Amino acid sequence: MVIVLVDVHVKPEDVPAFREATAENARNSVQEPGIARFDVVQRGDDPTRFLLYEVYRSEEAIAAHKATAHYAAWRDAVAPMMAQPRSMTKYVNVYPADADW
Amino acid sequence: MVIVLVDVHVKPEDVPAFREATAENARNSVQEPGIARFDVVQRGDDPTRFLLYEVYRSEEAIAAHKATAHYAAWRDAVAPMMAQPRSMTKYVNVYPADADW
Repeated sequence: MVIVLVDVHVKPEDVPAFREATAENARNSVQEPGIARFDVVQRGDDPTRFLLYEVYRSEEAIAAHKATAHYAAWRDAVAPMMAQPRSMTKYVNVYPADADW
Repeated sequence: MVIVLVDVHVKPEDVPAFREATAENARNSVQEPGIARFDVVQRGDDPTRFLLYEVYRSEEAIAAHKATAHYAAWRDAVAPMMAQPRSMTKYVNVYPADADW
């Protein structure tokens, strides 16, 4: 598994629109066969900060996700909402094991 | 839901022992009724850095977890393994909705 964490900081006025666009992208993304999870969470102490917790079954699944229409629509919709460039960190799973996602 | 992210930086020599102790804690924690997920992931570019992605059904579930024997055993086992104090950040869920964890 490849776990991708994306840290996002949006402009305060764009928080509702970002939530909506990102939930829609997540709903579509979890339909992809290479995606095990696509959680979207919002900081308790700062609602302008979000984390995307994306769990892929392979590196190829990341490339496949980037090629979807829903990813492109999300990327373009949220581009003007960023308060700063988003950052991405990759992880591998310790628990659960590959078979248990 | 209350999502707790714990960033952990361990001493290089303790990486295997930390993986083992933390996977064991996760296996026990997912049996708790108030815990929806307890993922443990390791940074791809720095194996001394871990993230715990803990999803609780309530604040009370966090307190219940802290009262378990497996939490206490984990806390004590990993205390000498820390390269720096671990940090914790709380989030709320945007996707999936409460009913879908």
